[in-house]
Amino acid sequence: MTTPTSNKFEFAKTPANYVPLSPLTFLERAAAVYPDRVAVVHGERRYNWRESYARCRQLASALQQNGVGFGDTVAVMGLNTPETFEAHFGVPMAGAVLNALNTRLDAATIAYILQHGEAKVLIADRALSGTVSAALALLETPPLVIDIDDVLDQSGTLLGAMDYEAFLATGDAQFSWQLPADEWQAISLNYTSGTTGKPKGVVYHHRGAYLNAVGNVLAWSLAKHPVYLWTLPMFHCNGWCFPWTLAAVVGTNVCLRKIEVGAIYDAIVTEGVSHYCGAPIVHNMLVNAPAELRAQKTQQVKGMVAASAPPAAILQALEENNFDITHVYGLTETYGPAVLCEWNEDWNTLPMSEKARLNARQGVRYHVLEGLMVADPETLEPVPSDGKTIGEIFMRGNNVMMGYLKNEAATEKAFAGGWFHSGDLAVMHPDGYVEIKDRSKDIIISGGENISTIEIESVLYRHPAVLQAAVVAKPDEKWGETPCAFLTLHPNAAPVSEADIIAFCRTQMASFKLPRRVVFGELPKTSTGKVQKMVLREQAKALD
Amino acid sequence: MTTPTSNKFEFAKTPANYVPLSPLTFLERAAAVYPDRVAVVHGERRYNWRESYARCRQLASALQQNGVGFGDTVAVMGLNTPETFEAHFGVPMAGAVLNALNTRLDAATIAYILQHGEAKVLIADRALSGTVSAALALLETPPLVIDIDDVLDQSGTLLGAMDYEAFLATGDAQFSWQLPADEWQAISLNYTSGTTGKPKGVVYHHRGAYLNAVGNVLAWSLAKHPVYLWTLPMFHCNGWCFPWTLAAVVGTNVCLRKIEVGAIYDAIVTEGVSHYCGAPIVHNMLVNAPAELRAQKTQQVKGMVAASAPPAAILQALEENNFDITHVYGLTETYGPAVLCEWNEDWNTLPMSEKARLNARQGVRYHVLEGLMVADPETLEPVPSDGKTIGEIFMRGNNVMMGYLKNEAATEKAFAGGWFHSGDLAVMHPDGYVEIKDRSKDIIISGGENISTIEIESVLYRHPAVLQAAVVAKPDEKWGETPCAFLTLHPNAAPVSEADIIAFCRTQMASFKLPRRVVFGELPKTSTGKVQKMVLREQAKALD
Repeated sequence: MTTPTSNKFEFAKTPANYVPLSPLTFLERAAAVYPDRVAVVHGERRYNWRESYARCRQLASALQQNGVGFGDTVAVMGLNTPETFEAHFGVPMAGAVLNALNTRLDAATIAYILQHGEAKVLIADRALSGTVSAALALLETPPLVIDIDDVLDQSGTLLGAMDYEAFLATGDAQFSWQLPADEWQAISLNYTSGTTGKPKGVVYHHRGAYLNAVGNVLAWSLAKHPVYLWTLPMFHCNGWCFPWTLAAVVGTNVCLRKIEVGAIYDAIVTEGVSHYCGAPIVHNMLVNAPAELRAQKTQQVKGMVAASAPPAAILQALEENNFDITHVYGLTETYGPAVLCEWNEDWNTLPMSEKARLNARQGVRYHVLEGLMVADPETLEPVPSDGKTIGEIFMRGNNVMMGYLKNEAATEKAFAGGWFHSGDLAVMHPDGYVEIKDRSKDIIISGGENISTIEIESVLYRHPAVLQAAVVAKPDEKWGETPCAFLTLHPNAAPVSEADIIAFCRTQMASFKLPRRVVFGELPKTSTGKVQKMVLREQAKALD
Repeated sequence: MTTPTSNKFEFAKTPANYVPLSPLTFLERAAAVYPDRVAVVHGERRYNWRESYARCRQLASALQQNGVGFGDTVAVMGLNTPETFEAHFGVPMAGAVLNALNTRLDAATIAYILQHGEAKVLIADRALSGTVSAALALLETPPLVIDIDDVLDQSGTLLGAMDYEAFLATGDAQFSWQLPADEWQAISLNYTSGTTGKPKGVVYHHRGAYLNAVGNVLAWSLAKHPVYLWTLPMFHCNGWCFPWTLAAVVGTNVCLRKIEVGAIYDAIVTEGVSHYCGAPIVHNMLVNAPAELRAQKTQQVKGMVAASAPPAAILQALEENNFDITHVYGLTETYGPAVLCEWNEDWNTLPMSEKARLNARQGVRYHVLEGLMVADPETLEPVPSDGKTIGEIFMRGNNVMMGYLKNEAATEKAFAGGWFHSGDLAVMHPDGYVEIKDRSKDIIISGGENISTIEIESVLYRHPAVLQAAVVAKPDEKWGETPCAFLTLHPNAAPVSEADIIAFCRTQMASFKLPRRVVFGELPKTSTGKVQKMVLREQAKALD
């Protein structure tokens, strides 16, 4: 850093030239400039930006009237509906912090999160009343509950003091909300799914939410007025900040309660969807849809995929179906995507397998992520950019969380040395693109050699019969650990045996990396669709 | 503001999650991700982003070796060449502040600015050595002078200690530059052209430069890799922040020493230009170019125009020539454009005259301008949004200057009441679009009625013979002031008299607004092409 000393260029900040960054102003602007454009579509419901803004102000006003203010938490147990979208603005407009809950969690975990996050209000979809009521029963001081009573799903029961629309009606559509006094103020709280231990509460601030919302625009070259389909849960890192991005680019939010291929194509065709984000499974569904569904879509649609890049076959099918896919990478701790496999047009003419290989890499930093490196986790010394040496991914920037709520030890550990420790193991390629090789805790150490489970999985995916693959360590008396593969096969694949798979692998990898055991069947998943390797490790251990 | 008190969501900032905003990181990213893409084109010279980044680091390193550091000023007297572009990064990478000089200024003013800004180094184009040497002769302690020795213009003489390339060669291409310790640190200094009094030094900071660079992307829906033609001087509000924008979107800077219609079309065709910015005169040149020049261009080109929107005839001609024009508005104090006439697609089907009328309005706030209002200059009470009531334009946001260098009184006056006072008089339309009616100092007060000179000018422009029009106040014993029109006619227009013009106006405006006198001839202009109304006022006063 340059050393600041007094100089002629010093000026005091004034309200005229210093305003806290917050994504809330994107909403105000969208409503002022494009009041009549459609902001939200949900079944028969349609709100333009004027109406959405008014509803968000009503929500903020109603919350404040119920004692919610600075430093308070408002939880939402909601699907991808207008209410969850509105909470991304209405809750922070009341000065409070939004805690969007993972709707797939069990009641005990929901109860833990409500208690740990100290939610004062819980806005919950009636269709989730089973989990919610069980969770509430576990709490000594339950929050005020407001029901989302969606005509599109009238299952479950109403649990709350009133329903969402009645609650809004108590609020003032002209509510004079304020920006936070400091852009370094919490805006949301997202619990990690945590395969081990209690979930940790990741805190985002207004500055980071503003910047990563803009980061999505810069990463995706997102022009104004996209029509965005909500195939990604809004509770997942605040929908990767897209509720705020959509306000910035004055797009249309096409809501979707369920990931169902008919509904997805229907929305794409009817609403003219131009963009979506989603897990790999969404992309698989898109290309494996019946031909008559796929034939209805005529426009190009751009998709962002995270978690893992689609294998070559899926990528090719997506391209043939006029989907343009961008591979991104991030964690709850980085406001969702913070790294993208920036597509270089020089690659356009390469064979599909090569394109898939390049696009499978996690890539380079978002504009708003200021630092990205692969380094030795002890010394923080970057590894050589040789595409081979494994290190841990470290990130630094304004789209790195404030910290873990009420967990100083974990926060300090995560930020040790001035970088965020991702826990993901990767290599740095000569062209500056990062490629993940494994989670720290997933790596297999066999005879002292590190074996990347992702590398074995990517070989397994090349086998025509394999639909899904997961590799974990199996304890081994001689080697310490050996790879054990769990496979789901394509429903109409030709029969294949454990020996066939191992023989196939032998043609494509060093023999010390070969899976010693192959197990066929469904893979256990977390509520967010991640394979539960912890469960598989237990299964592997139990194998003889 | 919500009242911050201690709460569970408090976290300390760490280097992992708080990084000062600065446009310098866009350059580092462009060079890392797209090292081989063309960054700068200038005649036979072409630099890719790797090379441009290396040259900027060399410049920063060479400056530091010459004692330049935090709080120092480096002035550039440069045209739109690679050197001026590089200075936008190299100077702040050395911790210093860039002062890009208006090359059209006279020696005495340049000397004043160099002295007032305390430039330690002056990088100057040899073609401007006449003005520069005269300015240096006026200084007691002249700065270190470095020559830009451009093969495209070998006029003038070399004045400096060495030329720019030799200077770069003394610098380290691996120079380990640092971000500013605080994003609220000065990055550049731009003197207003000031029609009266001494020019004032407007100071920009890293945060504002970052945000307005991003603001350009958001305002223009600018996708990555534009090919940008430099028809706007880089010394004008740092080229409206576009040197930094171009690095963010990894575009190509097509340099241009002179605004000459042949060179512009040549660049558009040869380099595949997609975007440019410019004063109205540039747009006039584009459509008035010989048909054989215009016929060479086949692609759509997007242009930003400021100062005043093109009249309907020019707008129609631009549209017919496949130019897509965005009208923006801003001041030196707002980092260039901060307001844009956001085009609403509902207007596409309107008649051209109506489109021109709508597009002539200054419009709505940039995303990064947080507040824009038309208000009473005394009470700061917003005027009604009726399209009629005149007030002053006020702005607030992170793209408002830090202040005027060494001029506390002017800074305080500019920011009185927590808003930046633009000095522009405008109305607020019912749809929230601002429209300028006049500069405060240009308004005519006749018999107690305010008369907008811009309104009269816009009527005059409708007359087929009128090429350029300017209206000023002429002192009048009876009325206080009356409008006086100065006109330049189209070269091959039919003859027209003062009485003809007044009769034409009479059909289109209230009689108290009629120009009482009409004078034909060339209009006096400032160095930036603005009509010098001060000069015209003197001429009007001298008329009998």
